[in-house]
Amino acid sequence: MIYAMFNSLNMAFFSFFATLKIQGGLAMKKIILATRNFRDTYVEQMEKDYQFLVYSKDQAIDWSQVEITIGWKPTWNEHLLTEKTNLKWVQAISAGVDTLPLKEFAKYDILLSNGSGIHAESITDHLLALLFMENRGIFQAIQQQRKQQWAPDTIPYAKLSDQEILIVGTGQIGQRLAQALTFFGVHPIGINTSGHEVAGFEKTFALSDLHTCAKTADCIINILPLTEETTHLYDEAFFAQMKPSASFYNVGRGPSVDTAALTKALEKKQLAFAALDVFEQEPLPENDPLWHTENLLITPHISGHTSHFQKAFMDIFLANFQQFLTKQELVKNEINLDKGY
Amino acid sequence: MIYAMFNSLNMAFFSFFATLKIQGGLAMKKIILATRNFRDTYVEQMEKDYQFLVYSKDQAIDWSQVEITIGWKPTWNEHLLTEKTNLKWVQAISAGVDTLPLKEFAKYDILLSNGSGIHAESITDHLLALLFMENRGIFQAIQQQRKQQWAPDTIPYAKLSDQEILIVGTGQIGQRLAQALTFFGVHPIGINTSGHEVAGFEKTFALSDLHTCAKTADCIINILPLTEETTHLYDEAFFAQMKPSASFYNVGRGPSVDTAALTKALEKKQLAFAALDVFEQEPLPENDPLWHTENLLITPHISGHTSHFQKAFMDIFLANFQQFLTKQELVKNEINLDKGY
Repeated sequence: MIYAMFNSLNMAFFSFFATLKIQGGLAMKKIILATRNFRDTYVEQMEKDYQFLVYSKDQAIDWSQVEITIGWKPTWNEHLLTEKTNLKWVQAISAGVDTLPLKEFAKYDILLSNGSGIHAESITDHLLALLFMENRGIFQAIQQQRKQQWAPDTIPYAKLSDQEILIVGTGQIGQRLAQALTFFGVHPIGINTSGHEVAGFEKTFALSDLHTCAKTADCIINILPLTEETTHLYDEAFFAQMKPSASFYNVGRGPSVDTAALTKALEKKQLAFAALDVFEQEPLPENDPLWHTENLLITPHISGHTSHFQKAFMDIFLANFQQFLTKQELVKNEINLDKGY
Repeated sequence: MIYAMFNSLNMAFFSFFATLKIQGGLAMKKIILATRNFRDTYVEQMEKDYQFLVYSKDQAIDWSQVEITIGWKPTWNEHLLTEKTNLKWVQAISAGVDTLPLKEFAKYDILLSNGSGIHAESITDHLLALLFMENRGIFQAIQQQRKQQWAPDTIPYAKLSDQEILIVGTGQIGQRLAQALTFFGVHPIGINTSGHEVAGFEKTFALSDLHTCAKTADCIINILPLTEETTHLYDEAFFAQMKPSASFYNVGRGPSVDTAALTKALEKKQLAFAALDVFEQEPLPENDPLWHTENLLITPHISGHTSHFQKAFMDIFLANFQQFLTKQELVKNEINLDKGY
């Protein structure tokens, strides 16, 4: 029994020193802290120079070693946004960076890049689903099916190429959508901050022309990032400009829309239809009256879901990673922290 | 008062003879009998050589003068399909001619042409609506909205270009769809009677290979006309071949599908989803259990509705009309009455 006790102690001592040794060895490597895991093949590339850690709130982290993060959590602010921080680069996973502490990143000279482009194909496909459904009257058909009603003559239809489609936001998603719509004979109109020309758009206008453009558009699609300028951009005065036959889609950010104003405009038939994938409050509360607003399609922030996420994301991250290792610079999707996009 | 009576009689006589005269004048022209009206500009072109008449059951028609019809009504059979008929050409409005008396047309040497091509853009757009909706999980989102449920993680999504899409029918609609899908990175597979190659399709197979092709397809789309060979082509044995994750769309003809077999296959989850625009019985009866079959979208035969119908139809009709006037032949969309398409 004494022997057994000694053996057990011995094992405990061995364990204790082994752990120290491993922790010591790892502690020498700087950390890439991520909000989610990636496939081994990607992790191996990062672990040549860094320790790759998937964040878990129960695990102790040596915050002083964190030099790069993939994604961001609000609870990291107090650890990584201090005078002592060694954080140098945040690679966001989403395209929108409006929820991130941009001013603090600027203060501590932290580089920021986003995931813009990863979701472009998915969001374009989501928008094409909405456009084709609307033009073929499939929303109305679904409502009739519920009522066991066969009434083909009451279902509206329109030709996509007859529609004036206004794409507010001429970045990667807007350009991809414009290209697809052009294939179908549409002449897409774009809106961006300054109104500068963008390949693939028939015409472009400045954001200050939004209300004028809204007067003739058959469908207005918001893809803008959230900034001070785009908060409640779509308000009562905007919806009042729309044609009663027109529709409005939002796949950008929820707070760009004054939802109360949109609801009233739909009730007053100032526009015919709206589709929202993003909301001022997410998740949309279960008791929100919005769920049952007529002529409104709600999707739960799914337009960016993509089945090839890891490959698309790593195409951005690894290109930036190589440049960061050699020059402490980024080559893809760097955010201007003053502008916020 | 006598004068007034005389005057009134005089007016009546004048009216009577005027009517005779007009009827006589018109009766000398042969008739184009149509199931619907067209814009004046088109009617004027027909009335250079014919009288254009829109059918109404309350109006007397000199059936012996009817040489051309636009569209067909079953009640016309007894008047126009007799030994004494002077009918020479039927221009159908629809693409499908399966409901027309083809054998009688053949017996009396009546030419038949269809409206194939008019509906190609609309039907393609309808199918794109279904494909994009399915790949972006919008059907599921609509179901969740009804339940006031925010559950983005339970909504499926797929990349269109990863899908194996089998288009059964490689005519104008199939080709247009194949072209659109190719733009989105899909490699569409076609099926036609003999398996002959068709531009725009990655591969084509014969109808006899349908069950083999069904084993790997993610989406199977029927656009075939109704013939003896295609009646109940999609039966229990066919659905048993499908992948449980796959879907089936029918925009061809209702009787090509054994609807009872499809319903059972959906219940047994032999396939994931079906969308029907055509039915064995139309209108679908109000009390039909099909209305509430899970994972089935019903649209009331709307996929061909088109907003530029008259122009597209007259492009076919007027080309045929010119050729018919000079050579008693057709140049567009003539149907082989033996084959039925």
